[in-house]
Amino acid sequence: MMTAREFRKIFAETRRRSEEICAHLQTEDFGVQPVEHVSPPKWHLGHTSWFFEELVLKKCPGYTVFDPRFGFIFNSYYESVGERVPRRERGNLSRPTVARVLAYRAAVTEATLGLLEDWSGLSPAQKSILEVGVHHEQQHQELLWTDIKYILGHNPLVPYYTESLGENPAPPSQGPKWVEVPAGIYEIGHADPERFCYDNERARHRVFLEDFTISTQLVQNQDYLAFIQDGGYADSLLWHAEGWQWRTQNEIDAPLYWQQIDGQWFQYTLGGLQKLQLDAPLSHISFYEAAAFARWKGMRLPTEFEWEAAQAKLDWGARWEWTESAYTPYPGFQKAPGALGEYNAKFMVNQKVLRGASVATPATHQRPTYRNYFHPPMRWQFTGIRLAN
Amino acid sequence: MMTAREFRKIFAETRRRSEEICAHLQTEDFGVQPVEHVSPPKWHLGHTSWFFEELVLKKCPGYTVFDPRFGFIFNSYYESVGERVPRRERGNLSRPTVARVLAYRAAVTEATLGLLEDWSGLSPAQKSILEVGVHHEQQHQELLWTDIKYILGHNPLVPYYTESLGENPAPPSQGPKWVEVPAGIYEIGHADPERFCYDNERARHRVFLEDFTISTQLVQNQDYLAFIQDGGYADSLLWHAEGWQWRTQNEIDAPLYWQQIDGQWFQYTLGGLQKLQLDAPLSHISFYEAAAFARWKGMRLPTEFEWEAAQAKLDWGARWEWTESAYTPYPGFQKAPGALGEYNAKFMVNQKVLRGASVATPATHQRPTYRNYFHPPMRWQFTGIRLAN
Amino acid sequence: MMTAREFRKIFAETRRRSEEICAHLQTEDFGVQPVEHVSPPKWHLGHTSWFFEELVLKKCPGYTVFDPRFGFIFNSYYESVGERVPRRERGNLSRPTVARVLAYRAAVTEATLGLLEDWSGLSPAQKSILEVGVHHEQQHQELLWTDIKYILGHNPLVPYYTESLGENPAPPSQGPKWVEVPAGIYEIGHADPERFCYDNERARHRVFLEDFTISTQLVQNQDYLAFIQDGGYADSLLWHAEGWQWRTQNEIDAPLYWQQIDGQWFQYTLGGLQKLQLDAPLSHISFYEAAAFARWKGMRLPTEFEWEAAQAKLDWGARWEWTESAYTPYPGFQKAPGALGEYNAKFMVNQKVLRGASVATPATHQRPTYRNYFHPPMRWQFTGIRLAN
Amino acid sequence: MMTAREFRKIFAETRRRSEEICAHLQTEDFGVQPVEHVSPPKWHLGHTSWFFEELVLKKCPGYTVFDPRFGFIFNSYYESVGERVPRRERGNLSRPTVARVLAYRAAVTEATLGLLEDWSGLSPAQKSILEVGVHHEQQHQELLWTDIKYILGHNPLVPYYTESLGENPAPPSQGPKWVEVPAGIYEIGHADPERFCYDNERARHRVFLEDFTISTQLVQNQDYLAFIQDGGYADSLLWHAEGWQWRTQNEIDAPLYWQQIDGQWFQYTLGGLQKLQLDAPLSHISFYEAAAFARWKGMRLPTEFEWEAAQAKLDWGARWEWTESAYTPYPGFQKAPGALGEYNAKFMVNQKVLRGASVATPATHQRPTYRNYFHPPMRWQFTGIRLAN
Repeated sequence: MMTAREFRKIFAETRRRSEEICAHLQTEDFGVQPVEHVSPPKWHLGHTSWFFEELVLKKCPGYTVFDPRFGFIFNSYYESVGERVPRRERGNLSRPTVARVLAYRAAVTEATLGLLEDWSGLSPAQKSILEVGVHHEQQHQELLWTDIKYILGHNPLVPYYTESLGENPAPPSQGPKWVEVPAGIYEIGHADPERFCYDNERARHRVFLEDFTISTQLVQNQDYLAFIQDGGYADSLLWHAEGWQWRTQNEIDAPLYWQQIDGQWFQYTLGGLQKLQLDAPLSHISFYEAAAFARWKGMRLPTEFEWEAAQAKLDWGARWEWTESAYTPYPGFQKAPGALGEYNAKFMVNQKVLRGASVATPATHQRPTYRNYFHPPMRWQFTGIRLAN
Repeated sequence: MMTAREFRKIFAETRRRSEEICAHLQTEDFGVQPVEHVSPPKWHLGHTSWFFEELVLKKCPGYTVFDPRFGFIFNSYYESVGERVPRRERGNLSRPTVARVLAYRAAVTEATLGLLEDWSGLSPAQKSILEVGVHHEQQHQELLWTDIKYILGHNPLVPYYTESLGENPAPPSQGPKWVEVPAGIYEIGHADPERFCYDNERARHRVFLEDFTISTQLVQNQDYLAFIQDGGYADSLLWHAEGWQWRTQNEIDAPLYWQQIDGQWFQYTLGGLQKLQLDAPLSHISFYEAAAFARWKGMRLPTEFEWEAAQAKLDWGARWEWTESAYTPYPGFQKAPGALGEYNAKFMVNQKVLRGASVATPATHQRPTYRNYFHPPMRWQFTGIRLAN
Repeated sequence: MMTAREFRKIFAETRRRSEEICAHLQTEDFGVQPVEHVSPPKWHLGHTSWFFEELVLKKCPGYTVFDPRFGFIFNSYYESVGERVPRRERGNLSRPTVARVLAYRAAVTEATLGLLEDWSGLSPAQKSILEVGVHHEQQHQELLWTDIKYILGHNPLVPYYTESLGENPAPPSQGPKWVEVPAGIYEIGHADPERFCYDNERARHRVFLEDFTISTQLVQNQDYLAFIQDGGYADSLLWHAEGWQWRTQNEIDAPLYWQQIDGQWFQYTLGGLQKLQLDAPLSHISFYEAAAFARWKGMRLPTEFEWEAAQAKLDWGARWEWTESAYTPYPGFQKAPGALGEYNAKFMVNQKVLRGASVATPATHQRPTYRNYFHPPMRWQFTGIRLAN
Repeated sequence: MMTAREFRKIFAETRRRSEEICAHLQTEDFGVQPVEHVSPPKWHLGHTSWFFEELVLKKCPGYTVFDPRFGFIFNSYYESVGERVPRRERGNLSRPTVARVLAYRAAVTEATLGLLEDWSGLSPAQKSILEVGVHHEQQHQELLWTDIKYILGHNPLVPYYTESLGENPAPPSQGPKWVEVPAGIYEIGHADPERFCYDNERARHRVFLEDFTISTQLVQNQDYLAFIQDGGYADSLLWHAEGWQWRTQNEIDAPLYWQQIDGQWFQYTLGGLQKLQLDAPLSHISFYEAAAFARWKGMRLPTEFEWEAAQAKLDWGARWEWTESAYTPYPGFQKAPGALGEYNAKFMVNQKVLRGASVATPATHQRPTYRNYFHPPMRWQFTGIRLAN
């Protein structure tokens, strides 16, 4: 468990960082929601404040709610907390304005910092929620990056935002290598009771893995280009049935943000439209595309257990890596009590686990046992592929 | 036809007025599109500028297009002019910013005023398009009012905007009266070749009307409240089949912007949420509701021909009045050549004609032969009811 | 009003005829509903029986309902009569079987004939409903033909049914001619109080028509082929906006039942797939296609009033002819009391009037004042085009 | 591998049995498809014949295809085999008739039996496909039962079919018991290379299981009734997020086929509508309902590995049991070559594994390693619940 000083530092830093990510936005950029799963940046800023206000501050004697209608506006999906704006309507709300949301943020930050003055007076439950709140906000920082990219990248003017993210890192100097992992029992899940993890990373438990081989490197753009040029998008036998249907209905024939102009491939980045960087790690593909590519290579995606067992030998952190594993509870999983119990457990069906982290993941939010999860067609995260066999 | 001086005056006034209507908006309010038929105010400001740029300025030698990508963004529905952002996507565009759209407006206004310096050098076709452009922008001024009302009125914070519109005028001092109109041949449609009208108001032609009676007054909120209290929304026999389906699927039980709080009726106005003003003219009802109400009264809606024949004796101008008439071409109708031909003719199916004008209609945009038209379920305009028999 | 003898004759003949139309169906053909607006033949046979049972027999003392659950199954759209199977579910009901429906028909026919024994004992209201019931069943006879054609024509095996309908008559020997009709007041609507008509054909009233010209002949397949070959389906300026959208979304590029095989045009008929008969009257087109064709010819569709004023000089009866007129009430229209009031009035919005009759219309169901109506995209009726100007 | 004699016997028996299941159907029952996932019985009879014709007979020299258009009609989902009728359209095809489909069956059965005369002349690949064909048809026998139940059970006449299935068996005499399974490595998957299994049951591999407890008995109707009466359908915290959405949108408040009449619970069975049998095994629930029930009990569903490890001690076979496991490939999974490769592998995403078997599963189609799979909302199979902890 952190000390009061450590927590105050990370809390203040996290609050500041969320706003910093938005530094180059125009006021207009804060409000739009081009598709249901991309939320307006303004909403993220408000929601991450509401989390602290709703779950911590409102329960403190003497706290005055900033605006009682904000609960309706900034609740995401907590059924136990009350009614809320339907998710698809988030982009229809011009009010509260950006300035007002920033004022809300400032008030919540200040009130929470005030609460932290008396660290020892806080209950373990309060401390726990505060810690979750920081990690929750870090998660939304990643969403801020990817939602900003989607908002600007789907605008006909394809504006420049910033290159500070370094989203397309050069590959490691040595070529791809393969690690062989012997069959045996492996321990999976978060071990250290002193350090933070989400409930879905527990209980630590044993898994038996048969022999497998896994690449130390991520698939690169040039690898995927070969798949495209070989007709990968046109060969139904490479695809899951629903992947094929998804591809056909949505006329998908390349990763998100890729486009061909006069025979040349380009990709939209937060730094604008750029020539496709062939040796950068592939990004913005769905699980369906990841699986079709792996089949085309005559290989497969690793399971999340294989990934975790091998991770110390892998070069990871640039892309969230689709695994073959579905998002289901670990043996001994206990969902958190109250509203926090809605954080993870209720999504444990029909989603795929992604392991690793991406260029948009805050450093303090990365750990080898982290289980990210998305629906198979989702592409707007920095998702990539690692092959196994 | 107007003189150069008259036209410059009305052009400049119209351009200024569109921005004035938006004067109290926050930057965030300019961009949202809560339903497909409500466009972002920013889009209206850009589109009315694009109209002049695309149809007039671009054809003038030496004119430099402000931004070649704006054609894609601000074209509404002109197939003959090229590709465009799908209507439902207008609210997803944070760029161009409001400031940039205002710069676009200023540039288009200035270039057009420049063109008007040499009025006598303009062809009749150019003059005609310029005149249509002004009326087109006035039409969008009304949409600015109704779209702003929808955007703010559907926000959980129900903000105040302005009371300058006077949207709920007090009734005339004398009570409702009925006019009897004798059977006979009436001339319908625009007559004066010197004065502007849309193509759909022509040709002037003869219509035979049987005897009818028509109210000089609009239906008031209190009249409609009686319909509600009598169970009008629950009696299928009062409704058109598709009106009943619309009502049921959308759970409609009151006009748009009405809500009951603790047994008391309120209505949202641009001046905020207010107690329902009983003697104000009813507003924001669909054709289906208008027709069901009329049937409940044992009466009917007038046809557009009855309305025009009687209009001189009617008190009109507060609400667009649903008529029984479908929007179809007059005998001798000729659609305008080129892109302007897409202005009216292509919508002449499955819409109902509304006559009169509303509190949001610019004074210079009102005339007795004006044919407004909307689909039967539309309610966000200031629509009302006049009874006939 | 008919005599008892006349009525018994036409009643018995109508009941017999409905079954005769189905004579060549396989048991399996009776049950399918490939699209919502095409009902299973079995349903038509049951529904036309239910009409007599529900509105006449059930109100006679001593009558025992055949099966109380049939009201739920065979009510079409009468809200005032009670709950019913949703229209789109009609094809999901394998029970009652065809044999059981035929038994139901026989029982209803027999009970009604029994009732007709005492013709003078029947009230005028009863006689009126009985008469409507016969005409109602004749209307469903036409639907039987068109629904059977749709069911078989959309089967990959494109089976032969019968050629007895003569659906593609040869053209009259003389070529197309044009009738000029002078401006003036015309009387429109059903006149003879002694002869049957639907409520929507009344009141007879005066209409002023400007001069117009109308073709005595229907548009032929070869005329429409020229439209196709001239790119009519690709020129947006010929189309209504919603017609263009309909065409695009549904990838329409020819009339229903037309198909091109190895460069040769074929049309499905109840006699199987046949080479397109060039001089047969065009059939199975939507209002949108009719209007686009007329615009391409530089002409227009007549209004229903023009049609009625000119009809005595026209060759009509092979195709239902789309008119420009929307389906709205005549001056002095009175909807029938009770459930019969739901027969016509509640559909008087968003539909187009078709005049004339088709090869599938029973002879006793044809009259110059008849107002048929369908939504603009509907094509499965024998619909055609007559030009005016 | 079976002998020629054994195979001929099981083949002939399987072909006969499919028709026997349909013995009590009326001709009309063979054709309807009330929802997309319920196919017309006629289609099952044809499709299982097409499987043999397409994958075996057509490749034999001298075989004449029964009807070349049947490939289009009876292909289910094999992209590699060609175009086909969209699944949702199966119920719209009145032709081929039932008689014609039975003739098709007879021809295919006879031709295949002819082929089997020369068993030793068949290649291993041919034998393998023939064997799959028999198991494939057995799978469709179960679907015949459940689709017939759906078709009749959703008919307002709720007809009696047969009681021969014994769908609601009485519980075993002893009460529920719990088995404790110790942690350790377990072997999972099909072992015997001589006996048939689907590709998805391989490779046999090792799995480590932590200690767990599992019920020997299935949940009964009375257990689930307690969940309903305790408000289980109204407590969002018991549900997966998408389960809650499914429940709400579809207004689900009881298992499929349950209905309350005058306060008394009934369930539709193939033997007609019957009083709910309290001690029968619960059936016709979705994965979402299964998971919510388990959470309400403070327990969970077993994984498929736990199930297989414990199965010898369990009373199973009455209901397909939802497991927590997602349907993903086993280590070492190899999909079959050619069209058979589309049999299982392409569905390995977004589905849940069900273990065991049901009253509708042919005895020779039941085995402890069998992996059935359905999407979480599916309820029309005989699905049930077994608790674990």
